[in-house]
Amino acid sequence: MKTQQIVLASRPIGTPTLTNFRFEDVVLPEMNDDEIQLNTLYLSVDPYMRGRMNDAKSYTPPFEVDKPIEGAGVAKVTASKSEKFNVGDYVYGRLPWRIHTVGASKEFIKIDVSVAPLSYYLGILGMTGLTAYFGLMDIGKPKAGETVVVSGAAGAVGLMVGQIAKIMGCRVVGITGSDQKVKLLKEEFKFDEVINYKTTQHLEKSIERSCPDGVDIYFDNVGGVISDAVIRNINFHGRIPLCGQISLYNSSTEPYGPRLQPILLTRSVLLQGFIINDFQSHFPEAMQQLITWVKEKRLINSETIIQGFNQLPVAFLGLFEGQNTGKMVVEL
Amino acid sequence: MKTQQIVLASRPIGTPTLTNFRFEDVVLPEMNDDEIQLNTLYLSVDPYMRGRMNDAKSYTPPFEVDKPIEGAGVAKVTASKSEKFNVGDYVYGRLPWRIHTVGASKEFIKIDVSVAPLSYYLGILGMTGLTAYFGLMDIGKPKAGETVVVSGAAGAVGLMVGQIAKIMGCRVVGITGSDQKVKLLKEEFKFDEVINYKTTQHLEKSIERSCPDGVDIYFDNVGGVISDAVIRNINFHGRIPLCGQISLYNSSTEPYGPRLQPILLTRSVLLQGFIINDFQSHFPEAMQQLITWVKEKRLINSETIIQGFNQLPVAFLGLFEGQNTGKMVVEL
Repeated sequence: MKTQQIVLASRPIGTPTLTNFRFEDVVLPEMNDDEIQLNTLYLSVDPYMRGRMNDAKSYTPPFEVDKPIEGAGVAKVTASKSEKFNVGDYVYGRLPWRIHTVGASKEFIKIDVSVAPLSYYLGILGMTGLTAYFGLMDIGKPKAGETVVVSGAAGAVGLMVGQIAKIMGCRVVGITGSDQKVKLLKEEFKFDEVINYKTTQHLEKSIERSCPDGVDIYFDNVGGVISDAVIRNINFHGRIPLCGQISLYNSSTEPYGPRLQPILLTRSVLLQGFIINDFQSHFPEAMQQLITWVKEKRLINSETIIQGFNQLPVAFLGLFEGQNTGKMVVEL
Repeated sequence: MKTQQIVLASRPIGTPTLTNFRFEDVVLPEMNDDEIQLNTLYLSVDPYMRGRMNDAKSYTPPFEVDKPIEGAGVAKVTASKSEKFNVGDYVYGRLPWRIHTVGASKEFIKIDVSVAPLSYYLGILGMTGLTAYFGLMDIGKPKAGETVVVSGAAGAVGLMVGQIAKIMGCRVVGITGSDQKVKLLKEEFKFDEVINYKTTQHLEKSIERSCPDGVDIYFDNVGGVISDAVIRNINFHGRIPLCGQISLYNSSTEPYGPRLQPILLTRSVLLQGFIINDFQSHFPEAMQQLITWVKEKRLINSETIIQGFNQLPVAFLGLFEGQNTGKMVVEL
């Protein structure tokens, strides 16, 4: 069977461009025992994937040049040599950027389609939701009445963090990059304050004004100068779940900035880098909580769905220009 | 009664000098009820005191200009209007830089002189010991076989951290600033490896060579370029107790350096600023453990004792030139 895939044509230096991707026709291998054949329906594009394009040690190995990009996806089973799955089942898992694929059944999880639309499993009920949940709840440990600042607030994780922090009874201040997103976060997602970092005169002072009691939790999705400004407002015993550093991912030189350790030291601040696998043993409870909140309509899904397999590279590049609100997903 | 004191004459800009201190004669006030009169025997000089010389918000309020410097000290009770203390008792507490003083009895703790020499209560059995203990044990959470790197390794806290890490069965690598200290740390304190950061050609590579399995815990006393080099070698799930940043304390401009959050993020690293008061409820157990180790001779005290009240400013300034090995104490 013939299909199409997208491979990493070359490692980007600085900001990736379309030339770093290449479309290819491939012939699928025959299925072996315990394998399934899949028709990919949705693929997730996420900022962390930029890191995998570099040839650098990280928590996931780098993408290989001339091999397909891969990421989270949802697919339908079209043929099965596994007892675990029947034709017609929907599955979630790590998928190559390919229209059809063949994979080991143990790598996939069956989706209950009665719970939520399929794309939710790439966002609110997927890695995004779990990332927001564990970062905020297990590292941030929010208490009612505390102030939570989240950067990249209209991004996939940011939107979830803000909503969960509101459920926890916190004052939530978002930082984002357009007036349209400011309006959305305030009106639809009930953020208490939202700052447009691109138009504010003095970000550090804006944060100070928006957080009269200081910042208890800073959920950091972006890094760089935005984080510098928030951290200068952090409270004694503040917590910083370190989730993303999107503002630095496309740096072609090592980024420099003020040394903030003296602030972290004198204010007894916790800063914790994390990936969701650190919390793997708690996935079931977390998923159950997220599903409950979704059913209670206390968590609203927000996604930017781009149509068409051939739009995958464009959708990915759009992440770095803030083109998405909520989870960016490509529907094949 | 007349006595002598040392006040902050002016706030230092950058590195402090002797002109920032002034000696004064003062008359002690009469004792009130529940107060004691003290003859100060030992005063501690510590790097954190540099921060209190600035007019900046921190975990302790700044020293006031024209008021006495204050810090940890050991004194003998010379008169008492308190039921808690008798004349001749030895006490530990926060003391002004003054030969004689009068203070509220509730601010002092009686010392059991049978346990250890008096000066130990400013070091191994005092704030220094507790800082090393809680930073390493409660934040670092060392496991046998792990690699612990400690900067400022021959300093008061560093020497304790290294020894406790060895008791815990860790491989211990120290970073220090003279060949004499390298020798001492290896021979007397059984550090596995010690790096002289002033003479090594490439600190990051030296650390890599000294830590073939990477760095699991980095106990940071110094900050700046030394910490940059260690953090580049930190392992997945590494822990960084952030205890001091002595290399930055005398900066007159805001220090800049590489942004290391991407490393902390991709390696799921914990960085935690702390002061010992964060662990106040656990002081008794910790003290008991430290005393046991001292009695078992598994923890060796190391102190640099400078003689004479009038040497206090000189001893303090010496901290920033690495003139001490172990705890720097002034004996009046």
